[in-house]
Amino acid sequence: MQSSNTNGQGGAVLDRSETHDMISSEKVDGTAVYGRDREKIGSVHHLMIGKRDGKVRYAVVSFGGFLGMGEDYVPLPWNELTYDEDLGGYRVNREAQSFKDAPRYGRDQEPNWDQSYSGGIDRYYGARA
Amino acid sequence: MQSSNTNGQGGAVLDRSETHDMISSEKVDGTAVYGRDREKIGSVHHLMIGKRDGKVRYAVVSFGGFLGMGEDYVPLPWNELTYDEDLGGYRVNREAQSFKDAPRYGRDQEPNWDQSYSGGIDRYYGARA
Repeated sequence: MQSSNTNGQGGAVLDRSETHDMISSEKVDGTAVYGRDREKIGSVHHLMIGKRDGKVRYAVVSFGGFLGMGEDYVPLPWNELTYDEDLGGYRVNREAQSFKDAPRYGRDQEPNWDQSYSGGIDRYYGARA
Repeated sequence: MQSSNTNGQGGAVLDRSETHDMISSEKVDGTAVYGRDREKIGSVHHLMIGKRDGKVRYAVVSFGGFLGMGEDYVPLPWNELTYDEDLGGYRVNREAQSFKDAPRYGRDQEPNWDQSYSGGIDRYYGARA
């Protein structure tokens, strides 16, 4: 995690661990996440990855003190995020308000990532199962 | 990175950040990698992830002092790795010898991850482009 946040907030600086196509898992954690209005809403805390297919399923986004949610973690289905070269981070095409009732958990409350939990996230965002 | 290696070498202990389907990016880094003979050959140092599709392309495996390679990093196409519940880690269906001439780089030599570099890895392992 040593290189988290080294690309700052909105900078599009590429180092050699990052290309236009790929990014290191060391670097994803800490990457800024922006809302529809290009305001920063949080940053990627970690990813949940399918063990067998190697597909990222959820980006767990840290909403630090946003909307009074303290340091809650909000898991977003991966396809909610689009990488934005200009912003140098991921963009979610939703209003900040739409995360208010989203599934989330506190810093010390790692959820049980079973079918029921992930199904709840998928339903909230209308994601494909 | 705080939970790297907490599942030890070969233990199949699942905590709540890991299910049978998914694993946290915080935890993948440090997961053991075994060869065809079930001997540990290294551990995942980090992943290279497609920015847009969220697909893991390469697992960069740290071969610590193995075959005289010091602490070299060997990038493996993701589809070389199969998660093995019993071993509690990833398994690569190759002889240890087959990594001897594989593309690798030293600790302080992060490669330029361009098409040419990743193409070389794919060709070495006969992976699909």
